[in-house]
Amino acid sequence: MPRIDNAELRGKVMSADEAAQLIPHGAVVATSGFTGAAYPKALPTAIANRAKDLHDRGEPYQIDFLTGASTAPDCDGVLAEADAIRLRFPYQSDPSMRQAINEGRMGYFDTHLSHTARQVTAGFFGKVDVAIVEATRIDADGNLIPSSGVGNNVEFLDAAEKIIIEVNSWQSEDLEGMADIYRIGAAPGRQHIPIYATGDRIGTTYIDIDVSKVVAVVETDLPDRNAPFKPIDHVSKQIAGHFLDFLEDEVRFGRLRYDGYVMQSGVGNVPNAVMAGLLDSKFENIQAYTEVIQDGMVDLIDAGKMSVASATSFSLSPEYAQKMNEEAAHYRKYIITRPLQVSNHPEVIRRLDLISNNGLIEADIYGNVNSTNVSGSRIMNGIGGSGDFTRNAFTSTFITPSVAKHGAISAIVPFASHIDHTEHDAMVIVSEYGYADLRGLSPQERVPRMIAIAHPDYRPLLQEYFDHAKATSPQQTPHDLARAFEFHLRLAETGSMMPRGA
Amino acid sequence: MPRIDNAELRGKVMSADEAAQLIPHGAVVATSGFTGAAYPKALPTAIANRAKDLHDRGEPYQIDFLTGASTAPDCDGVLAEADAIRLRFPYQSDPSMRQAINEGRMGYFDTHLSHTARQVTAGFFGKVDVAIVEATRIDADGNLIPSSGVGNNVEFLDAAEKIIIEVNSWQSEDLEGMADIYRIGAAPGRQHIPIYATGDRIGTTYIDIDVSKVVAVVETDLPDRNAPFKPIDHVSKQIAGHFLDFLEDEVRFGRLRYDGYVMQSGVGNVPNAVMAGLLDSKFENIQAYTEVIQDGMVDLIDAGKMSVASATSFSLSPEYAQKMNEEAAHYRKYIITRPLQVSNHPEVIRRLDLISNNGLIEADIYGNVNSTNVSGSRIMNGIGGSGDFTRNAFTSTFITPSVAKHGAISAIVPFASHIDHTEHDAMVIVSEYGYADLRGLSPQERVPRMIAIAHPDYRPLLQEYFDHAKATSPQQTPHDLARAFEFHLRLAETGSMMPRGA
Repeated sequence: MPRIDNAELRGKVMSADEAAQLIPHGAVVATSGFTGAAYPKALPTAIANRAKDLHDRGEPYQIDFLTGASTAPDCDGVLAEADAIRLRFPYQSDPSMRQAINEGRMGYFDTHLSHTARQVTAGFFGKVDVAIVEATRIDADGNLIPSSGVGNNVEFLDAAEKIIIEVNSWQSEDLEGMADIYRIGAAPGRQHIPIYATGDRIGTTYIDIDVSKVVAVVETDLPDRNAPFKPIDHVSKQIAGHFLDFLEDEVRFGRLRYDGYVMQSGVGNVPNAVMAGLLDSKFENIQAYTEVIQDGMVDLIDAGKMSVASATSFSLSPEYAQKMNEEAAHYRKYIITRPLQVSNHPEVIRRLDLISNNGLIEADIYGNVNSTNVSGSRIMNGIGGSGDFTRNAFTSTFITPSVAKHGAISAIVPFASHIDHTEHDAMVIVSEYGYADLRGLSPQERVPRMIAIAHPDYRPLLQEYFDHAKATSPQQTPHDLARAFEFHLRLAETGSMMPRGA
Repeated sequence: MPRIDNAELRGKVMSADEAAQLIPHGAVVATSGFTGAAYPKALPTAIANRAKDLHDRGEPYQIDFLTGASTAPDCDGVLAEADAIRLRFPYQSDPSMRQAINEGRMGYFDTHLSHTARQVTAGFFGKVDVAIVEATRIDADGNLIPSSGVGNNVEFLDAAEKIIIEVNSWQSEDLEGMADIYRIGAAPGRQHIPIYATGDRIGTTYIDIDVSKVVAVVETDLPDRNAPFKPIDHVSKQIAGHFLDFLEDEVRFGRLRYDGYVMQSGVGNVPNAVMAGLLDSKFENIQAYTEVIQDGMVDLIDAGKMSVASATSFSLSPEYAQKMNEEAAHYRKYIITRPLQVSNHPEVIRRLDLISNNGLIEADIYGNVNSTNVSGSRIMNGIGGSGDFTRNAFTSTFITPSVAKHGAISAIVPFASHIDHTEHDAMVIVSEYGYADLRGLSPQERVPRMIAIAHPDYRPLLQEYFDHAKATSPQQTPHDLARAFEFHLRLAETGSMMPRGA
């Protein structure tokens, strides 16, 4: 089948450089792309080149840039390096871009991913001028067949004044059938989302668009630039072990069954270790209602342990992305990709009673969680979908090594220097030293549990802070605000949260 | 009609003191009661007396105590004064109880109200031994007709081993028909909640119970102890004016219509001022999908401006509670009381595109909001439903006077000393100086908006902090953690956040 099966759109094929000319300075540009998959692969470089040329001639050129979530060096990276972005949302994880944001060269607003599309539709970020969306194929009616992710594509295409499509022949045509495209209607009169089980399909396999808005079609053949996972290290294995203990205990307390555990999982090496652990567990018919499909889920599917995985995109290692591409016709029986608004929607998350599982930067002794800003100021990536799942899960969990930078940074601190998940939302926190179950506990009852999962070197320091705070401010949530950030201040001064000689 | 129309339950009538003997030391007791309405009025005093007697004899007596939300002096108050509670959740606002909590004599865990019932069912707080629920009537089949609120009654009655019913003849029998009782089923296979418009009724007007679990029926005739509202002061009027400006601007930007504004509103004098302002506004067919029915909503109904109000309970002044009681047959055409899980459910809140509106203790220059703990340590009331609505609203707003304690405390601070609503959740913050619309803005772009609504005396201090933080830590969210709490520390040292001589 031809990749561009619609005659009108075939007539709009042009080079990426030509298409980039259609995007003026000051435009609000909204693209596909989610965790290294399905992002446009030609336009970003063409836009970056255009920006550099104009900047060299002393002319301004910057765009506001929205995506599904993070993209890749050849999208976020090249645009950041070219200083081509004024304001970026809702999520990124690119090193060059992170540097530009923290140096104040680029505005950035990280938002809950489930809100983005609705807020774009409502004009919170201004009018969308151009949508740039990757597809694996355009069918005869001009519908787009999504590639390796859906993200905010539907709402961006609906909202945009102009559309540029990248048709990527690297993406397998067998991905057709994996996506489940559903539009959440407008209020008043908005209907429910009729997903009652993880695997329910409620929409179409293609995105219908207003073909008259398409101003360019660009052909590409470049692979998704997913990051490889590191081999599972000892600490990750220990954390995974304690997370599995938590799951086993949930079964013991009658809150979970070995059949039909519904998981959400953040991205990374520890989550992959958790999934490796599940391979050898008693859990069967595991289901993912989550944001991204990871290597570990593919392994669980291959092993017959996972019956269905619903997400908005892939976040696979290059090796697994290749395998997915080659065997898409097989995997589409087990995998559904949904619009981000649906994959992360509170309505469905709450309905499914899922157990969320996300990483963190630091948590404090009362269970408040920082997911975004190092030492309160320096943004790492953004909140992403962690709040969507944490806030609406049946049980929310976080996993973290107890220390970073060879022990110089403790993941458990007296007062979190930025708070993205409050004490009302974070329920269970897991490190290599065990899991702290904070459910049903008053703030002071949580403290010994949190200290027990801190690194042993930091436990006396945390205990001393709490004892001191309790003596100073004997109230519901004891704090001495004069000392609350002493770990962070010591880190800034000496390079370590651990006192010298301790 | 007899208030106790079921013969079996008529046979279980006894005094409150007799019924209190059925509640042993260590019991988990879950009751009706929500913002001064529908709480049990006889048992709490009887339990408190029993506790005092036992304590006088050197014997232990304490219970774990769950409700819908806050109650009244003759419920939370008497139990706190008698040291009869070990652990309390999910919300309270009683002065004696607050003191007991902050002095460490009572454990307290404030949770999102929409989560409580589900977490009770799942056993996060242990097994529920006794449910004590007020009803206006028991029908011939033993069903309970709710009085002035529903709260967590359904789930508490379902979960409890034993049930004690208080039948309160002060409550109007005409309240029958106001409640809409609906059970959210269990996962897997849980269904959607079929509420598509604020006024949709989806359940029964009574709560069906397992009559065999009833161990006592107690007759009472005491009024709800709602707090009177203060007359609307000048500052409240100014805040209300700016909130109405915000609504008008939303209409102008096409994000709201004069017909069919769906409101959620926290409780208090400023919210009542907002509702008074709406009386004279262009808004028609106003609808409330909210937690509690307040005086201002009754006025809006009387004026023909509000077409329907859905909540879980009343929070009326004594005068309005009397009027509601007398004219319940009229008001039940406009008012629906629902289980708390439904009134605050993210699924419905998100579906209705409502605008939430809640109070706060303090907000920081980046838009993080503290709703619960003064100076990070001292609990005031609790998070209540503010997170349920803020997190799932189409647009979330907060209203606050810019200063408290005659200017000694600024509501806008460099770093919030406790965070209940993150920068990702709080969208619009209103003081008597205007409204700060934070939507679509990066952290540093939010700062001037927040400073503009601070009290003029505090603006230079906030600006100086931000400038200093930006020079010290020129990153995404500039903070100098050594100075972040300087307002709070100055308050602790000098009694004012304002420097002497400033």
